[in-house]
Amino acid sequence: MKPQQKLLNSVDRCVDEALEGIVSSSGCLSLLRGHRVVVRADLEALKGRVALLSGGGSGHEPAHAGYIGSGMLSAAVAGGVFASPPPASVLAAILSLRDAGVSGVLLIVKNYTGDRLNFGLAAEQARNRGVAVEMVIVADDCAFDQPSKAGRRGLCGTVFVHKLAGALAEEGCPLDEIVSKVTEAVKGIGTLGVSLSPCSVPGCLPSFDLPAGEMELGLGIHGEPGIKRSKVTSADEVVKTMVDHMTNPASQSHLSLKSGDSVVLCVNNLGALSCLEISISVVTRSAIRYLEGRGVRVARVMSGAFMTSLEMAGVSLSMMRADQEILRLFDARTTASAWPNLSTVCISGKSYILDPPAKDMQETSHTEGPLSDVMRKALEAVCSSLLQRQEELNSLDRASGDGDCGNTHAQAAKGEDINCILVDTLCNIYEQYSQVCLSDRYGGADPGDRTMLDALCPAVEELGRLTTAPPGGHMAILQAAVEKAELGAESTRDLTARAGRASYIATVHVTLPDPGAVAIAAILRAVFEALGGQK
Amino acid sequence: MKPQQKLLNSVDRCVDEALEGIVSSSGCLSLLRGHRVVVRADLEALKGRVALLSGGGSGHEPAHAGYIGSGMLSAAVAGGVFASPPPASVLAAILSLRDAGVSGVLLIVKNYTGDRLNFGLAAEQARNRGVAVEMVIVADDCAFDQPSKAGRRGLCGTVFVHKLAGALAEEGCPLDEIVSKVTEAVKGIGTLGVSLSPCSVPGCLPSFDLPAGEMELGLGIHGEPGIKRSKVTSADEVVKTMVDHMTNPASQSHLSLKSGDSVVLCVNNLGALSCLEISISVVTRSAIRYLEGRGVRVARVMSGAFMTSLEMAGVSLSMMRADQEILRLFDARTTASAWPNLSTVCISGKSYILDPPAKDMQETSHTEGPLSDVMRKALEAVCSSLLQRQEELNSLDRASGDGDCGNTHAQAAKGEDINCILVDTLCNIYEQYSQVCLSDRYGGADPGDRTMLDALCPAVEELGRLTTAPPGGHMAILQAAVEKAELGAESTRDLTARAGRASYIATVHVTLPDPGAVAIAAILRAVFEALGGQK
Repeated sequence: MKPQQKLLNSVDRCVDEALEGIVSSSGCLSLLRGHRVVVRADLEALKGRVALLSGGGSGHEPAHAGYIGSGMLSAAVAGGVFASPPPASVLAAILSLRDAGVSGVLLIVKNYTGDRLNFGLAAEQARNRGVAVEMVIVADDCAFDQPSKAGRRGLCGTVFVHKLAGALAEEGCPLDEIVSKVTEAVKGIGTLGVSLSPCSVPGCLPSFDLPAGEMELGLGIHGEPGIKRSKVTSADEVVKTMVDHMTNPASQSHLSLKSGDSVVLCVNNLGALSCLEISISVVTRSAIRYLEGRGVRVARVMSGAFMTSLEMAGVSLSMMRADQEILRLFDARTTASAWPNLSTVCISGKSYILDPPAKDMQETSHTEGPLSDVMRKALEAVCSSLLQRQEELNSLDRASGDGDCGNTHAQAAKGEDINCILVDTLCNIYEQYSQVCLSDRYGGADPGDRTMLDALCPAVEELGRLTTAPPGGHMAILQAAVEKAELGAESTRDLTARAGRASYIATVHVTLPDPGAVAIAAILRAVFEALGGQK
Repeated sequence: MKPQQKLLNSVDRCVDEALEGIVSSSGCLSLLRGHRVVVRADLEALKGRVALLSGGGSGHEPAHAGYIGSGMLSAAVAGGVFASPPPASVLAAILSLRDAGVSGVLLIVKNYTGDRLNFGLAAEQARNRGVAVEMVIVADDCAFDQPSKAGRRGLCGTVFVHKLAGALAEEGCPLDEIVSKVTEAVKGIGTLGVSLSPCSVPGCLPSFDLPAGEMELGLGIHGEPGIKRSKVTSADEVVKTMVDHMTNPASQSHLSLKSGDSVVLCVNNLGALSCLEISISVVTRSAIRYLEGRGVRVARVMSGAFMTSLEMAGVSLSMMRADQEILRLFDARTTASAWPNLSTVCISGKSYILDPPAKDMQETSHTEGPLSDVMRKALEAVCSSLLQRQEELNSLDRASGDGDCGNTHAQAAKGEDINCILVDTLCNIYEQYSQVCLSDRYGGADPGDRTMLDALCPAVEELGRLTTAPPGGHMAILQAAVEKAELGAESTRDLTARAGRASYIATVHVTLPDPGAVAIAAILRAVFEALGGQK
């Protein structure tokens, strides 16, 4: 077994290079020579105000350097991947802030033994040098019913603390007042994670094994396994399990949440789940709906990658109980690069469905009369044929496209309302055919370009003879059309794709017929056979 | 072979639910009933101005709904995953914008046959209804030396176009002028992707096979394979290959770029690469350095997930040649949720290294004298022992932590300057021991908590007898210390972790000794043996 391939230059240098990456691409950050410490480039802006310093192990990007900016952190200290930073670097960061003339320094530390120790030692050393330093420990993990002596872990809820403390510091709030306000807010923050895969520290094997189809609940951001393993179910069910566990009063580490409470919700991609699943997303929808169903008012939602675990395919939900003052601080402006562009509108209670323009859409809608029996029979045959060939079409599409051609057709065929299928099918054929007419202007495909047109065009040409067919001659024309479509589909094997998505594949990859052309031939054959034609 | 497990509710509904997710979490977006169309909730703000509409297949989130807001898109139309949206939905979007009283509608379309066709048909239908509609095709792909008849594909560079056109529309620029300015800008945009894995449409198999350790250059955002396959090399080399290919004048689809040019750079995570690799990142650093090395001025950098391919582990680089006017539009304010919080400072030519405070850091620095031969011998033995046990320590750590304990120790042991290793080792032991003293206040660990202290404390207690040892009795004490450390390390098998990271693992997982305690015992034994003690 080999460590997973990553796009890095070296395992030893990856943290330093990543920090150079964010600093050199930001324009408003600096790197402290000899340390893994990132500070605001405009330190002079902090004079007389409280500075905020956070940090911890690397591998959680954009945490913490991404949260540096006016209205959030003043500096961040990074350790190695998943390793706490040394006290000497924490001290160097504190003293740099002191030299900028700040009135005090607040350390925001996630609750891990190493971080508490190293930030704690640096705080002692800084106090010995006369710097006013305070430390707030964030322990927002809701995983353990009975937390160990080490207490609850610090997870993504830490980002809320950066924001609240940052807004307070920005408006000139003194150190002791920030500490007391933030300490109070931390009590209303809870986080729980779930993952469909482990992650691996660069140069190491994955941190745990997780069979495909299983998920780990309550795992930590360092790849440490969670409290429970189960089958992956639906997004709705996973979210329900998470929220119920987080708010279960029987657990010592629960977040107290009752109907009528307002919360800020953070849906955090732990690394490798797709944005479709997480960021703009199915899970976000599930979480909002489930919370609203429990009578909770979701005041704000942030979704994206805020505190990751390298390439772990998982998500964490963080919630923070929010009153008007907390929302005011949450909404305050910041220049931190990883803070999202959020609106300040309350989410819950807002209607977001808009009626489309009714007038003059009609031209494109279809009159759906009762279907004749023959028509219905033909359509049922088409649907049945497409469902049978689902995997064959997917397989052809994997060779030349994105592998979903069979599913797309099957989805239409599975539609419950056969009238709709009729409309869909006719529209589809109409649109495919209109592609020929409009090809020069929009679609850009011609027969011979290895698209569905290679089956459709010869068939349509044949069908054009229907209007002048002798009595009883229709089936012969239909049969000829089917055969020409099949011949056309088969001929695409030898064609080089010049339009459509397959045109981007190197020719050597494509030795199978075009899935769209095969589907067209299958549809025509199904119609033909349903009307009594020979198999 | 089964489709990859995803965190969704259903394959058929995933796109609709993801759209509900972004709209219901935004507060300033609406969804058009019966269509996959997202529009600004404050459509009235568009009155008299040009509206911008984009869209295309889903699976590229945050594209395109994430780019809706003042200063960017007015609306976006989504198709199924990797499938073009139907013309009826594009038309419904256009007519909704018309009803809001806009002066015209610009369609921003990525260059794919289906998108060109469907947006083109809707544009025709809208024009028939008297709406002023124009269409800009974005074709920024630099993969193919000789693009097919379909032309270059539309990729992540499309996001630049959304931004420029959005800023122009926001300041009241008329439709024809936006079209001409954007058409000009598109000529200066190029994109190229590389991936270490395929992706899979929900419910389907992966779009292509890619052996571990290989990468695909020039692939598309629909999981279609690329132009060349090769071994994954370093981030620096991969970036060089990409930039060289993108700017190679021998390729018909190259982006012309010469020394002295200014560019905006976009480092786009195609899905599942870690933020350490991509967003805050090693690759961003590589790209800036390589471009600067070629004399190109990197004016702005955006890095993150802007146009994804589901869970593909890859990255694309987009570049846009930029003059002052383009930078002004790029920097203009937008409320679009997926637009990052960027500074308006030019990246290149800025120094970002800051000297740490020199005075009063001294207390923590160490005087490094020449090592005695005995000391050197002991340290060499420690390093050799730690390197030998690297994989054993990693393996123990996988059972209880993040699996890198061996690598961390090996990294120190591989350090070239043995003086530094001495300092590191001594500091490490000092800090570990100080943990005992400060445990109540910061670290929170005691002997018996299943940490390295379980080996360190009994050994240190034994070593405390050295000061009162009889002549010749030192080795016996050292031997006893080694044995107590080994006994202590072994005893951690039976201990429940109560501090440190292993305390978060369910007890059932941990049946092996603590890796930190094992390392301490190994270090002491190496010293003992180097001094002549029995093996």
